Amino acid sequence: MSEEDAERQARRALSVLVEPGDADAGAAVAAIGAVTLWAMVTSGQGLADLRDVMEAAGEDAYRMPAAWKRWRPRVDRVDLDDQQRRADRAEARFIVPGDAAWPGGWDDLGDHAPLGAWVRGDASALTARPGVAMVGARAATGYGEHMTAEVVGDLASFGATIVSGAAYGIDGAAHRSALATGMTTVAVLAGGADRVYPAGHAALLGGILRSGGAVVSEMPPGSEPTRWRFLARNRLIAAMSAATVVVEAGWRSGSLNTAGHAAALARPLGAVPGPVTSAASAGCHRLLREYDAVCVTTGAEVAELAGLASVTAGGDDIEDASGLARRVIDSLSARVPRDRAEIAVRAGAGFDEVAAVLGLLELDGLVVRVGEGWCAPGR
Amino acid sequence: MSEEDAERQARRALSVLVEPGDADAGAAVAAIGAVTLWAMVTSGQGLADLRDVMEAAGEDAYRMPAAWKRWRPRVDRVDLDDQQRRADRAEARFIVPGDAAWPGGWDDLGDHAPLGAWVRGDASALTARPGVAMVGARAATGYGEHMTAEVVGDLASFGATIVSGAAYGIDGAAHRSALATGMTTVAVLAGGADRVYPAGHAALLGGILRSGGAVVSEMPPGSEPTRWRFLARNRLIAAMSAATVVVEAGWRSGSLNTAGHAAALARPLGAVPGPVTSAASAGCHRLLREYDAVCVTTGAEVAELAGLASVTAGGDDIEDASGLARRVIDSLSARVPRDRAEIAVRAGAGFDEVAAVLGLLELDGLVVRVGEGWCAPGR
Repeated sequence: MSEEDAERQARRALSVLVEPGDADAGAAVAAIGAVTLWAMVTSGQGLADLRDVMEAAGEDAYRMPAAWKRWRPRVDRVDLDDQQRRADRAEARFIVPGDAAWPGGWDDLGDHAPLGAWVRGDASALTARPGVAMVGARAATGYGEHMTAEVVGDLASFGATIVSGAAYGIDGAAHRSALATGMTTVAVLAGGADRVYPAGHAALLGGILRSGGAVVSEMPPGSEPTRWRFLARNRLIAAMSAATVVVEAGWRSGSLNTAGHAAALARPLGAVPGPVTSAASAGCHRLLREYDAVCVTTGAEVAELAGLASVTAGGDDIEDASGLARRVIDSLSARVPRDRAEIAVRAGAGFDEVAAVLGLLELDGLVVRVGEGWCAPGR
Repeated sequence: MSEEDAERQARRALSVLVEPGDADAGAAVAAIGAVTLWAMVTSGQGLADLRDVMEAAGEDAYRMPAAWKRWRPRVDRVDLDDQQRRADRAEARFIVPGDAAWPGGWDDLGDHAPLGAWVRGDASALTARPGVAMVGARAATGYGEHMTAEVVGDLASFGATIVSGAAYGIDGAAHRSALATGMTTVAVLAGGADRVYPAGHAALLGGILRSGGAVVSEMPPGSEPTRWRFLARNRLIAAMSAATVVVEAGWRSGSLNTAGHAAALARPLGAVPGPVTSAASAGCHRLLREYDAVCVTTGAEVAELAGLASVTAGGDDIEDASGLARRVIDSLSARVPRDRAEIAVRAGAGFDEVAAVLGLLELDGLVVRVGEGWCAPGR
């Protein structure tokens, strides 16, 4: 067995021992490699060795006994032949860091990165185009499903892949809308990639696979989804996407957890506003208030958020205006007032011309007077 | 006549000559006083004198000829006796900077500050309590009127005065909701304070006056509202309020002009979100995207925005948690991950205690793991 194959096999085995996002496993694999860690965990006196090598590597060794207690009882569950049979039956391929299909964004998770992942469908769907995560409440309203379809439909022309979690509600609407417009879509599952979850989405997951999309999980085939695994799965959605958009979410929705991961990873975060009178939008408004999420109302705005397009905010107003108006606006600051003389110099225009244009722009609300000068608050 | 009376009378006269926000008049009055400016404008060779004194005062004199051309033809319109008769009939009182009823926020307008203002009703309503401007589209929807009533109703317990523009739609709903909950409310008009505008709001304006509120305008009694005066009036609403909230607004609504003034004056600006599918909310979403407005959904959030209350964002979650959870959250940063050891030191708690609390907080989505550490994105 080649060294690479051995590393791959050790990661497959370790993924049975550790829960998603186990930073102690991540730190140990980073320090000593999966093959060595696996050999230690399966050996009689492995813990002492593990502490020694971690200490030698300058890593925190004091967390290893607790980690050992989590991992060791699961060694008996490792049956790589059975795992492979399940993977083969589901046509799932195992990928590890460095593979072409490995989402580079996952590496930003550091020690919380997955050890590997099983992918069904076209594994290149994970990396071929920038991903946009569209997530939200299971208890979505007609408004939320409508907005999902509108935004995803708009995104089709920007070459994005739609990433979501295959749950009922907004997740399902995001995948369905992607399929309806011929876009590639990726479902990241909390249980094994071979397990259809939720059961009612069997046809949807089948449709994703048939259409060049992918279904992916860091859990070995056969694994059950658990509450912890759902939360851990959310970090993968956020980390592999150029932007995360929450369409609808209750005040304590799980999608806020995905949003929290996106914010913590400094990934652009968007929220679709909705009626304040709808509990299904309360989480989105919370994201706007507390997480500094960007208010997004169209696919073009989401594309801009994800860096897929440079849609100038308020562009249509400014394009309506004449070339001089555009130059005048460009010569203004959002906050620092500039006087007419300075604006004339910056816009390369006459003083009277500029004064007239400023008057028109003020009537349109595009510029405002502040003290002796002018600002363009919308810039 | 005392010097103070002379200054007051000169401001009354000048307010007939200049349109609201005329910065040249503001600069001249600041430099040489209203009495001197009035004397010059009414004298034969005043322009030469005006240029001389402005130059001597180190001010821009080059704008004075154009200003003179605007002011001079209106001198014949000044009839202070008639103005006084109209004011008396409407029981309007003239106030100038320095009067107890003069809103200090207007002084932040610099040369664009009004020369004076006529106030009907209880002039102390302008300054007795912090003002919150609630403004929005004339073409409001049922949703917008409902949200206005909800937010204003909540604000009653925070001791705010509701400031608005008496227009149909959101403005009217704001005044009505204030009256319904026994709050003081101030209507800032674009025409003279004695002119009922819009005509359909005669009863509303009467109600404002009878309930201890005020109707105010910088235009002399009898003046017509014009498009320019509406836009200029908006700067008074923004400047006299501790926060400006737009409840509903079309993409190009005039309320965005008020919002622009608030932003330019660095006053807190809030926008109530609504359905993306409603054109009446498009301007609010634009404010969230382009003007960095704060998303507000309740009166308590508006009170926080206006500095009337310190409602901690997400407070209900955090108050539910134990004292230790609160200390742990307080020891975290929104963006910079801290590891468990550092958190334990900052929270003044044991390492294991902190680890357990972090796990619970993570399940609630209040903290997230980032690499080796933890963040609280909602902070």
